Amino acid sequence: MVTNICMLMKISHIGRGIKKGWLLSVTLFFSLHAAAQEDPLPSWNDGAVKQSILSFVKTVTTEGTNQFVPIEDRIATFDNDGTLWAEKPIIQGLFAVFRVHRMVAANPALKNKEPFKAVLENDKAWFGKAGEKGLIELVDVTHTGLTEAEFAAEAKLFFETVKHPSLGVPLANVLYQPQLELLAYLRMNGFKTFICSGGTIELMRAISRPYYGIPPEQVIGTQFKYRYVDSAGVNDIYRMSGIITLNDKQEKPVNIQYHIGKRPILACGNEGGEGDVYMLRFSQGSTYPSLQLLVNHDDAKREFQYEEKSNKSLNMAAQYHWQVISIKNDWKTVFNK
Amino acid sequence: MVTNICMLMKISHIGRGIKKGWLLSVTLFFSLHAAAQEDPLPSWNDGAVKQSILSFVKTVTTEGTNQFVPIEDRIATFDNDGTLWAEKPIIQGLFAVFRVHRMVAANPALKNKEPFKAVLENDKAWFGKAGEKGLIELVDVTHTGLTEAEFAAEAKLFFETVKHPSLGVPLANVLYQPQLELLAYLRMNGFKTFICSGGTIELMRAISRPYYGIPPEQVIGTQFKYRYVDSAGVNDIYRMSGIITLNDKQEKPVNIQYHIGKRPILACGNEGGEGDVYMLRFSQGSTYPSLQLLVNHDDAKREFQYEEKSNKSLNMAAQYHWQVISIKNDWKTVFNK
Repeated sequence: MVTNICMLMKISHIGRGIKKGWLLSVTLFFSLHAAAQEDPLPSWNDGAVKQSILSFVKTVTTEGTNQFVPIEDRIATFDNDGTLWAEKPIIQGLFAVFRVHRMVAANPALKNKEPFKAVLENDKAWFGKAGEKGLIELVDVTHTGLTEAEFAAEAKLFFETVKHPSLGVPLANVLYQPQLELLAYLRMNGFKTFICSGGTIELMRAISRPYYGIPPEQVIGTQFKYRYVDSAGVNDIYRMSGIITLNDKQEKPVNIQYHIGKRPILACGNEGGEGDVYMLRFSQGSTYPSLQLLVNHDDAKREFQYEEKSNKSLNMAAQYHWQVISIKNDWKTVFNK
Repeated sequence: MVTNICMLMKISHIGRGIKKGWLLSVTLFFSLHAAAQEDPLPSWNDGAVKQSILSFVKTVTTEGTNQFVPIEDRIATFDNDGTLWAEKPIIQGLFAVFRVHRMVAANPALKNKEPFKAVLENDKAWFGKAGEKGLIELVDVTHTGLTEAEFAAEAKLFFETVKHPSLGVPLANVLYQPQLELLAYLRMNGFKTFICSGGTIELMRAISRPYYGIPPEQVIGTQFKYRYVDSAGVNDIYRMSGIITLNDKQEKPVNIQYHIGKRPILACGNEGGEGDVYMLRFSQGSTYPSLQLLVNHDDAKREFQYEEKSNKSLNMAAQYHWQVISIKNDWKTVFNK
């Protein structure tokens, strides 16, 4: 073949053709390279927080140093309410109200029974008196007593039809655009992204993949008692009354251990309910480099402003050097369109 | 470029070189294609069971029919004891005995305390009298009262040092070679493979990836109570006394729902303890095509022969048309070397 190649090189027309082709491919290569250098987090403002994310991902994905994390250990866990989507009001609560209306429509006798009556009549006094017990009872009666197939159908209808009460948009549009970019960026770098939320698992599983690109098997949440039924034409899981794990605070690392069996190297939560601090601490105990992110709801104009009376989450963020995401300063845009 | 190409074609030396190159690539292509046609399950004998597996995988992965299953729904769950590795004796039991010796060595006063005493003295009478309660107590005291990091170190040492008592080989070699091929074949076809076992999760997680290619986040098993501790220099999960879920029989579909949130389309278990029938039934309720496999321990010569007094698993296999894997007839070789 060598003689042939020499002949080839000597033929100037062919030579020029090859040179043009070479130039074209080199140009194409650099264009692609430049595209790869484009900002993967366009909705994040430049600053220390954004830089910490980019720097962390680069560090743990660059081979040849003792900071490299093998792909199978690149686990990222995200809270949901107030971290991936807005929580004013809690969407789980909207679902409970949706279910009250659905259940009363199917069985009108319920309208005289509590807590259905209190919801239909917007009886704040009843809920004030019933306290947390009343709320738990409301969630329980509206989320149990049906099969998984029936529940999945209810959840699907809910997300298709209900709008956010104050933002006035479909629930698919109350997601945080910068967080969607962060999830995609992490996955592009070999991370497995999980939700670890106080919300009930099957409600989140109805939308985790279309909204966030997170498949059902990567959703960790609050769980009701389940019972498997295989008789009388039913082959399914029956959702029973009673919460077996409320996935909040110290239960988050517990359920991460049950579900994943690895510490996350990136954990993201929010201040508001003191609910994510132990998930972030658990990730910080990794022998690998790790990054803890805490969303601070400080933007009254574009989102909702709220803080904890105890200020526990922000205090721990300072004590343990977590990265605090200021919605006001760090996010160029808030909601996905 | 056209003139150049014509000149190129006219140069006979180059033409012959190109023809040779073309022939080489065509040969290579067909070699690769033939390799792809090679048997992916070489340790399985030809027969109805092997054919059912190959046919099922082809059906659900071929686009354009209503039998096609999207890749995200290709979930396969496997029992472990008696399905992926030998269970005579139960390896969890060997670990409990290993732990007794470890704990007594660290704290000699334990040798006078039950159930440590009964294990050290091989006191079958004590275990006969204590019954199931005694066994649960033995598992409990040997598996709890330590952090996850401490437990992981114990599990690692166990698998590195303990041999199978009758087969006389390391535990890494009591795996079923045909099942390892099946797992790899499924993954090559886009399946996510899970373990769903009565064994305790963290013991299986110590070896699930090196032995089976199954990562810890895809292991479902029996769970002890966990408590998260973040104080006095400890940042870890503490393993507490008390089983919160015994992952057997009807609990298998329940834990599959918690952990995965999807029905498996392939489920594989074994007869021996009636433990897998509901996992197989749950998979059979899928709206997708599904395949249920049951390993029958009928090979006294090469493995261990045992059956259920009730014959429940094999009866249900006949009733529901599951594929029964005869170790004697369907497996060319049993253990991995």
